[in-house]
Amino acid sequence: MPGAPRVIVVLSGNELLDGRTRDTNGAFVTDDLSRRGAKVTELITVADDAERLDAVLRHALDAAPDLLVIGGGLGTTHDDLTASCLADVLGVPLAENAQALGFLEERLRVLAHRRHLDFDEVLAMARRQALLPAGSSPVPPAGVAPGIAARAGGTRIFALPGVPFEFEAMWATIAAELEHDDFFPDVAVRMLRMYGVGEMQVAPLFDELPCDLLDLGIKVGGGEVTVRLRYRREEAAERQADAVVAALEAGAPVFSRDGRTIDEIIAGELRGSGSTLAVAESCTGGLLGARITSLPGSSEYFVGGVLSYANEVKADLLDVPREMLAQYGAVSEAVAAAMAEGARDALRSDYALAGTGVAGPDGGTPEKPVGLVYVACASAAGTAVHRGTFPGDRETVRTYSSPAARHLLLRTLSP
Amino acid sequence: MPGAPRVIVVLSGNELLDGRTRDTNGAFVTDDLSRRGAKVTELITVADDAERLDAVLRHALDAAPDLLVIGGGLGTTHDDLTASCLADVLGVPLAENAQALGFLEERLRVLAHRRHLDFDEVLAMARRQALLPAGSSPVPPAGVAPGIAARAGGTRIFALPGVPFEFEAMWATIAAELEHDDFFPDVAVRMLRMYGVGEMQVAPLFDELPCDLLDLGIKVGGGEVTVRLRYRREEAAERQADAVVAALEAGAPVFSRDGRTIDEIIAGELRGSGSTLAVAESCTGGLLGARITSLPGSSEYFVGGVLSYANEVKADLLDVPREMLAQYGAVSEAVAAAMAEGARDALRSDYALAGTGVAGPDGGTPEKPVGLVYVACASAAGTAVHRGTFPGDRETVRTYSSPAARHLLLRTLSP
Repeated sequence: MPGAPRVIVVLSGNELLDGRTRDTNGAFVTDDLSRRGAKVTELITVADDAERLDAVLRHALDAAPDLLVIGGGLGTTHDDLTASCLADVLGVPLAENAQALGFLEERLRVLAHRRHLDFDEVLAMARRQALLPAGSSPVPPAGVAPGIAARAGGTRIFALPGVPFEFEAMWATIAAELEHDDFFPDVAVRMLRMYGVGEMQVAPLFDELPCDLLDLGIKVGGGEVTVRLRYRREEAAERQADAVVAALEAGAPVFSRDGRTIDEIIAGELRGSGSTLAVAESCTGGLLGARITSLPGSSEYFVGGVLSYANEVKADLLDVPREMLAQYGAVSEAVAAAMAEGARDALRSDYALAGTGVAGPDGGTPEKPVGLVYVACASAAGTAVHRGTFPGDRETVRTYSSPAARHLLLRTLSP
Repeated sequence: MPGAPRVIVVLSGNELLDGRTRDTNGAFVTDDLSRRGAKVTELITVADDAERLDAVLRHALDAAPDLLVIGGGLGTTHDDLTASCLADVLGVPLAENAQALGFLEERLRVLAHRRHLDFDEVLAMARRQALLPAGSSPVPPAGVAPGIAARAGGTRIFALPGVPFEFEAMWATIAAELEHDDFFPDVAVRMLRMYGVGEMQVAPLFDELPCDLLDLGIKVGGGEVTVRLRYRREEAAERQADAVVAALEAGAPVFSRDGRTIDEIIAGELRGSGSTLAVAESCTGGLLGARITSLPGSSEYFVGGVLSYANEVKADLLDVPREMLAQYGAVSEAVAAAMAEGARDALRSDYALAGTGVAGPDGGTPEKPVGLVYVACASAAGTAVHRGTFPGDRETVRTYSSPAARHLLLRTLSP
């Protein structure tokens, strides 16, 4: 997408690099920036090491992005290096900023009072948080530490504390100001989802089309391919987007044209017809139910299910005939269908989904290898069974089985 | 920890920067490297843009790390730039590698057969994946795309596909080779897990102890606190570690002294006594079963369960008395106990876990607010019920309920 402001995000903190903490600020801010039509070109997480942080900030400014967002390293310990490294790369000294000191005193007075601490002692410990690169200004704190707003050439720089609630709240203030300054373009987003094809079959569909005004993203996961188009809201770009959408609709099994997920579409269909759904899970062990119930309000249509891990449970609770289990084995078309029908009967639902497969790592045979999965959907109209073979490890096989079942349901609900 | 090898990780992919996909490879590999005693100084995620990827790879090699791991950008589309950018910064041309082509042909033959595609056409589309920087060698693929192994001065470079199961499997092979080459220091790792306390109660326990030879990490999640100690295997460090472990054992509810997860401990107990387990899930909708069955071999002790989302299902399949549901409501101590007992009867298991709660966002009342959860564990010795209130959104409430139930089971199994 031409003209999108370019952004680099730098996060500092050892805890983000040694397996202790999963980053949330980077995911949050890149997502938000992207929604607003900015293009994040790099997200860099760097250890609390002055030399490395210096090198990273220089690398970032060398790229002359329109915006540089820095998270973390604004606390009171020797590991908190952001202000001094930023001063370094800007070629200015650190200086105590009167406005920053004002923010700090105000927040520390409250904190000292609440925790019964001596204000002067607390201020002495925290006072270095009022040291800013000369010429920069403070961002009002959401917690205690003020942020830093600076410029380098055409790059706006904002440094914020790494504590997620502070980072998110202070970013919201900054983003609102940037919106006010028309920093972000007016962007349209369209999202199409398809199931049953791979990236290799989808990508060629728009290879021949003009896309220079579009920011085109393809994502693959759980058997689905998601194509996202972002573009400036203007006629020429709209036309390119329309052509790409038409090509996809014509050449790929698109099931969502408005960005809704398979779960949201299923929820809409079931709600619309006032129908109910049950599940019978073997190899997925609850993943399917967990996914369906992750949507708020799912109790309107989801009645429940049976986790029939053991064959006894398939027979006892789902009425799968023991002879069928003995003859065909638990991983078979017949048993998948019987599980779905059994769940529909036992839970008195309109629709029932079932899945049975070999998740591995053990239990595979030449005839029934690890990755073989049968999913079934029972309804008043009959029972459909789909056979899939999924590559990969136990978690992947289980993870792929759940969308296979949900897509079979969607095909049953709206053929 | 002194002397640790220094590592930079570079991930490429627009989808990681525009809010479409949450990175898992970076978290996985930094965690694994850190367990092995390496120090990750930077984790850089970069857009699919040749200029930026070039700049990032140059920046990374400028730091002369011992290891550079690259994830993503090895596919078949024009966005897949890793091989060519790596060749650029290494100052060598791209060349078709015979061994890589061999891997590719082998994998594509299977793929073409499975998807009923023409092998030659598929190979023509994918053949660029055999182009490697001259002088480098392929890493055997876990999916289709081979990885790249190269060197620049003292830096070992490995580039792997970004698909998580491929990335993880291929990294495991590389890590094993690096271990074999004594790339990683001889590091001892001790991990203690506790349940029912917060970080603020745990951290002070070792604040006064000497820890300068230890790399100490605290991780919090799902109600558990995990403390990880890493140190070079030498006497002085062992002594510090022993003191920290003793302080934790004395002052916190440690349930795992050897790093085993709650699921692994439960599996061990159930296997050891030849007992079986069933579940009855309401608000968790399958999360509990999914978690228990994520362990390979769980079919030895897990028989299955009932997802009793609707009250009808609680009554029909778990024999929860309708009067009890009417009198106390589905989220109550009585119903939690009846669900567990009902599951134990219906599934004929030795133990049964149940959970019922208000996951939200709707459905809360002043008496039964969002976040209120009852978990129960039924066994031959009787039924225990635990009442919990968890803060946060629907996903958090559901996620916290599952460990609450599993810890109640552990207390029942080994009081």
